[in-house]
Amino acid sequence: MFKGLKRLLIGRPLKNEVADEEKYSVFGGLPILASDALSSVAYATEEILLVLTPAIGLLAFPYLNYISIAIISLVLILAISYSQTIKSYPNGGGAYIVAKENIGVIAGVAAGAALSLDYILTVSVSISSGVAQIVSVFSDLAPYKVPLCVVIVLLLMVGNLRGLRESAKLFSFPAYAFMFAMFSMIICGIAKIKSGYTPVSHPIDTGTQAVSMFLLLKAFSNGCAALTGIEAVSNAVPNFKSPSTKNARKVMVILGFLIVCFFGGTSLLANLYHVVPITEIHHEKTVLVGIAEQVFTGNLKFMFYFLLAATFTILALAANTAFSGFPLLISIMAKEGYAPRQLSMRGDRLSYSNGIIVLSSLSILLIVVFKAEVSALIGLYSIGVFISFTLSQSGMFLKWVRNRNKNWMFKAFINGLGALVTFVAVIVIAIVKFDQKAWVVVIVIPILIFGMLKVKKHYTAVSKQLRIPTEELTQIDINASLYTNRVIVPIESVNKASIRALRYARTISENVVAFNVSIDEETGNKVKERFALIKTDIPLIVKYSPFRKVVEPLLKFIESTEYDYQKGDMVTVILPEFSVKSAWQELLHNQTRLFIQNELMKHKHIVVSTMPLQLKDDDYVMKSPKYKI
Amino acid sequence: MFKGLKRLLIGRPLKNEVADEEKYSVFGGLPILASDALSSVAYATEEILLVLTPAIGLLAFPYLNYISIAIISLVLILAISYSQTIKSYPNGGGAYIVAKENIGVIAGVAAGAALSLDYILTVSVSISSGVAQIVSVFSDLAPYKVPLCVVIVLLLMVGNLRGLRESAKLFSFPAYAFMFAMFSMIICGIAKIKSGYTPVSHPIDTGTQAVSMFLLLKAFSNGCAALTGIEAVSNAVPNFKSPSTKNARKVMVILGFLIVCFFGGTSLLANLYHVVPITEIHHEKTVLVGIAEQVFTGNLKFMFYFLLAATFTILALAANTAFSGFPLLISIMAKEGYAPRQLSMRGDRLSYSNGIIVLSSLSILLIVVFKAEVSALIGLYSIGVFISFTLSQSGMFLKWVRNRNKNWMFKAFINGLGALVTFVAVIVIAIVKFDQKAWVVVIVIPILIFGMLKVKKHYTAVSKQLRIPTEELTQIDINASLYTNRVIVPIESVNKASIRALRYARTISENVVAFNVSIDEETGNKVKERFALIKTDIPLIVKYSPFRKVVEPLLKFIESTEYDYQKGDMVTVILPEFSVKSAWQELLHNQTRLFIQNELMKHKHIVVSTMPLQLKDDDYVMKSPKYKI
Repeated sequence: MFKGLKRLLIGRPLKNEVADEEKYSVFGGLPILASDALSSVAYATEEILLVLTPAIGLLAFPYLNYISIAIISLVLILAISYSQTIKSYPNGGGAYIVAKENIGVIAGVAAGAALSLDYILTVSVSISSGVAQIVSVFSDLAPYKVPLCVVIVLLLMVGNLRGLRESAKLFSFPAYAFMFAMFSMIICGIAKIKSGYTPVSHPIDTGTQAVSMFLLLKAFSNGCAALTGIEAVSNAVPNFKSPSTKNARKVMVILGFLIVCFFGGTSLLANLYHVVPITEIHHEKTVLVGIAEQVFTGNLKFMFYFLLAATFTILALAANTAFSGFPLLISIMAKEGYAPRQLSMRGDRLSYSNGIIVLSSLSILLIVVFKAEVSALIGLYSIGVFISFTLSQSGMFLKWVRNRNKNWMFKAFINGLGALVTFVAVIVIAIVKFDQKAWVVVIVIPILIFGMLKVKKHYTAVSKQLRIPTEELTQIDINASLYTNRVIVPIESVNKASIRALRYARTISENVVAFNVSIDEETGNKVKERFALIKTDIPLIVKYSPFRKVVEPLLKFIESTEYDYQKGDMVTVILPEFSVKSAWQELLHNQTRLFIQNELMKHKHIVVSTMPLQLKDDDYVMKSPKYKI
Repeated sequence: MFKGLKRLLIGRPLKNEVADEEKYSVFGGLPILASDALSSVAYATEEILLVLTPAIGLLAFPYLNYISIAIISLVLILAISYSQTIKSYPNGGGAYIVAKENIGVIAGVAAGAALSLDYILTVSVSISSGVAQIVSVFSDLAPYKVPLCVVIVLLLMVGNLRGLRESAKLFSFPAYAFMFAMFSMIICGIAKIKSGYTPVSHPIDTGTQAVSMFLLLKAFSNGCAALTGIEAVSNAVPNFKSPSTKNARKVMVILGFLIVCFFGGTSLLANLYHVVPITEIHHEKTVLVGIAEQVFTGNLKFMFYFLLAATFTILALAANTAFSGFPLLISIMAKEGYAPRQLSMRGDRLSYSNGIIVLSSLSILLIVVFKAEVSALIGLYSIGVFISFTLSQSGMFLKWVRNRNKNWMFKAFINGLGALVTFVAVIVIAIVKFDQKAWVVVIVIPILIFGMLKVKKHYTAVSKQLRIPTEELTQIDINASLYTNRVIVPIESVNKASIRALRYARTISENVVAFNVSIDEETGNKVKERFALIKTDIPLIVKYSPFRKVVEPLLKFIESTEYDYQKGDMVTVILPEFSVKSAWQELLHNQTRLFIQNELMKHKHIVVSTMPLQLKDDDYVMKSPKYKI
């Protein structure tokens, strides 16, 4: 039944070869990779205003302009920087790879850890903001914000477990719809003001503070959320159809242009219409909704709902970026041994199922803990992504400086500038957002790095232990028998399962012992009597257990002189495994077997063989006259 | 580390023989077995008043008297009835056994199901009431009711996992302290009124309803909670020191006397002092605290705190009754196959660990769901216990009628009366409490019965399939070889783990195949090259996987003509199992092995052998020059 449900949700398994057909074209890839960066217009301007307006009142608007210009400059620098990365790394130039190759292992792992964290936050922030947009219009839904967010993340999870291509198909229409709606809003909005419309302003309290550098930097830090996701394209180069580098660079250019238009446009309109975010309980209104409400009135009212739907969907798409980025990143790290191996395995539908599940679980956790409040989550956001920007750009800078190819000075300048500005941003964000829970990130990232290095060390140690140098291979002779294999068959009573196990034991060794642990002599004697009736040369050992356990007497027996165990011999213990029809029946069996297996496995000279025993349907057995008691 | 923690919490393992020394004397057993019934004075009177006062105002008090008298009569009837049960069932006359032996299997299972449910509720109700008493005095603690309850249940769990005797030692002082405090309160309380004290009444609103039969029956039903736990003694006869029957009956008589005194006394005092429960938010006050506050004033104020502490502790003790009762009951049912076998196994400290853990988990669940509100939980309570009373008393009645021993008519009359009154009570409770969630119980009990019967059927079907009649044993010849055992060793590469597995394989069969699944030809060829260097006659099969799985190609290979598998042959698959130092490392290994093992186990002709491989400490390996890469 579970399998059926899985098929229904996830679809039929796909073969490896399909992987290639699922790659992106320029206009197929754009909606998936650009959405993270684009969707931040839904909250970036708003989060700047949320810092400025309570502090400095109407003065917020001119400063919004300066901050927006600063952020747009950052976007342009990074877009150009990343185009260079894409060209140099046709197999995917995620910050992890670039930093690792050009700076060092720890820098790479640090970038990986920072990015992983930011992918998780991308999901939480985007979905929370998407739901906030909806709640701005339909305020009755306000109490259900958290469950709504959780359901959406789960839907994304299922969609992504079904595989890449279907996601692209599913999401490209709404992404283009969003671009259309945003352009419409910006153009109509400007036109409306030019034609003499007087905006209806929400009353704005006079600020309580003077304009300070700290305040502006804080607003700037919040606005930096607009930049997250800009690295998505360079991570995903190999996901593009060939010529993948060229296609990816095209997407990068288009993306830079779109961010500038939309983020700049939104900030401009917020200015022109004097819109501020409203955060009263059960009467929240986002800046984007506030603007659109005034721009799209009368005959254009339908455009308001169109924009709302498109914004919500692009935010879901943004979360989806993380659903392609995180599992890919973590699978690369897992393949190199920095994360558990399971994360590097593709599932039935060619998606990295485990990575997808990890991402979904952690982002749901964040949503629940922070009650789906964007302003609460934004404190954690963007510091990780700026750390990875810095590491990646520094890596590129070092690459150019070392190689000194054609135009190296120009290229190094571009990436060096990128590295510098993002590094400054990291410092600024860490300082001004420290009280806004940025300290959590400052603690978690080093822990992640430490953990990843420790995992790597473990895998390395294991492979060192397992490794046989090629020159030693010729000295290995498997035909030579180095030890005796002795078999012990623990039996509860003389029944079909024990007979089957004994018969199997006989085929694998000459040295077999049947072993019974009884709670009292009466039970033990009964087993002895029945065992005596079978034709066999296998001896039966009966032990009485002062404890109620099987493992201790068994191990004691192996060590006893009675058993005459020779150092180096292997002991195979055969345990029956009941194969039952349904999960509830599974609970009724095999628990003891699992426990015994785990205990015995701690001894390097004991092999545990599990002997399957297929049980028939209860009803069949009970009705069948063949099975008489 | 886990083991160390376990030892610290649970104590060293005890041997079987200790079991006997842990048995109860009369005065050692009384606190453990009587506490459930006695502790209900903390809420029984209160729950009656909670029904009556809002409805009929001051008229509640005279009716409280009538209802209390009815309940006291019930107590006396049941105490006498159960004394007869104790005498007839020296090995424990729980409702399950009595009903099963004298009425039938379904009646027994029904009693077992009903009692199980009530044990769980006993824990939830007692702990919730205990915390409510504390909160009545220290109202600052009100917001932490639920976590407080949960912590107390967990403490009880740990205490009980440590074993029976220590619990008795731990709990007997506070139980006697409670008895002393209650007697003091009743005597002082009556004396104070007689000496002319005018009680300070909390204002009581005039009722909104007329006195109706339904209302009185509802109040009566709530008061029936006073009777729960009266059966504890008869369940636990074998836990007594010999003469166990005599000792148990003594406890039964003392218990009946104490319930009558304490419950009657509390109701009387509530009447004399006109105390009603106060249920305002963050200003709750239980009836018991309300009475004690007025009785113990001035010089006697310390007695108030003494009573409070003793009441809280006796309520914890009441929960503890369930901690001895539930695991014992469920272990008896498990031994007979009506519950999963694991519940019949004693843990390291001779307690039924699994039963204790199940009980704790379910009662914590109820506490959390019902927010530790006694009045909410009381709706579910007592219906289960009255069902088991009825079944047990009916069973005893049938026993006397069938056997017709000396005095059978008198004995049958006693138990028949018990059966009749408790049956009437079941009907009344089910009807009047139906809206108070009693319907949940009405649904859950049949489901439990169905489940228990289904488990029994499964175990029966399994034993039918495994059974070999003694006369057929002589026909079994284990020395005869009926099939060939063939071995397949899946190898990822040629390393120490695979060499070890191949060497073992060679000792258990002549027919061994090494099996490799590679993702591409390059990897496959490398494995082939290295394998060719080893001295062995074992062939290597390399397959390329269109899926990324190992199991499918392996099963396909077994069925292929290439392998020449003969029907009836066993195939042994050898998998390496990495034995690592810590739990986080465990996560990095063996997941694939577990998955493959589970998949292969579905085939009855495949034996899975797990070959342990002990890994050395990472730091040691990395530093040791022996392990060069």
